[in-house]
Amino acid sequence: MAETHGYHDNKAAYLARLRRIEGQVRGLQRLVDEDTYCIDILTQVSAVNKALQGVAVGLVQDHLGHCVRDAVASGGTEADAKVAEASAAIARLLRT
Amino acid sequence: MAETHGYHDNKAAYLARLRRIEGQVRGLQRLVDEDTYCIDILTQVSAVNKALQGVAVGLVQDHLGHCVRDAVASGGTEADAKVAEASAAIARLLRT
Amino acid sequence: MAETHGYHDNKAAYLARLRRIEGQVRGLQRLVDEDTYCIDILTQVSAVNKALQGVAVGLVQDHLGHCVRDAVASGGTEADAKVAEASAAIARLLRT
Amino acid sequence: MAETHGYHDNKAAYLARLRRIEGQVRGLQRLVDEDTYCIDILTQVSAVNKALQGVAVGLVQDHLGHCVRDAVASGGTEADAKVAEASAAIARLLRT
Repeated sequence: MAETHGYHDNKAAYLARLRRIEGQVRGLQRLVDEDTYCIDILTQVSAVNKALQGVAVGLVQDHLGHCVRDAVASGGTEADAKVAEASAAIARLLRT
Repeated sequence: MAETHGYHDNKAAYLARLRRIEGQVRGLQRLVDEDTYCIDILTQVSAVNKALQGVAVGLVQDHLGHCVRDAVASGGTEADAKVAEASAAIARLLRT
Repeated sequence: MAETHGYHDNKAAYLARLRRIEGQVRGLQRLVDEDTYCIDILTQVSAVNKALQGVAVGLVQDHLGHCVRDAVASGGTEADAKVAEASAAIARLLRT
Repeated sequence: MAETHGYHDNKAAYLARLRRIEGQVRGLQRLVDEDTYCIDILTQVSAVNKALQGVAVGLVQDHLGHCVRDAVASGGTEADAKVAEASAAIARLLRT
């Protein structure tokens, strides 16, 4: 069985949120296809961004609370790598 | 026929990009479903954000170059409203 | 006399806002100097970001409403360049 | 003596970076005062945003590597609160 991670307990919720986001992106296609006014499409793009951001923050919190936490609790040198790795992922999110 | 807007000439390209983004979001679902490591999922979320950002900047440019431009060229008072509306949409994008 | 631009009428307001932001950044230095808790400093960094974002959106709106607008009204080919230039500036803002 | 935090070892570096950012914000004031072209000011605003973002990511990494880590290592219930607090700060950064 695949090793599970911080978000495992919330897996169903993440999948539901991602399916909703998938539907929102299909909705964007419909808006473009139906020649909807640009500003209305941009408003929906912001909504998709916001939903994705919510998923990202949730995953960060779950990761900190489990994967990083376990690495720290195990007392090994892995904790530094986990912290650096998480910070790099947060930096990437900030740049988009 | 629906009134067309700035992005009309690039409609097919926008639809293709949005379908790719839809596929990326389905890819995120697969990663979660397969218990993929959190950081790898976060990296993909940043990629989806970036792709969406590209669509948004394209739509802004098309809107400025057509809808706002036409309103200015027509010399009416509508130009102020169009500029304010575009700026508000840009502000929303900046907040996500 | 230097050519003036879209924000000229709001110059005093922009200068006041930028002086306030300068003060906020000095405030961040004080927080670090006084060993303030990391989260409280991060909260202030978000506040400075938000204030800067407000200045940026204002400048974009002034630019669209004057520089881009004048280029369009003059009917020349400069309008395309102005729109492309503004869109590139907006894209840079979105990436930070 | 005030309790010190994750960034304590890098305090001088953070202060130097923040002083540079303060100088950049004063530079923005000069650009506005000298009626500089809007786009050139917007380019500098993006540069200040980027510098601030770098400070924020550094503070997050230091916080995770010390404050959150110590809370986890102490084995108490405080770790959950620290993780939630850090995630909320990251969410605020993402929204600006």
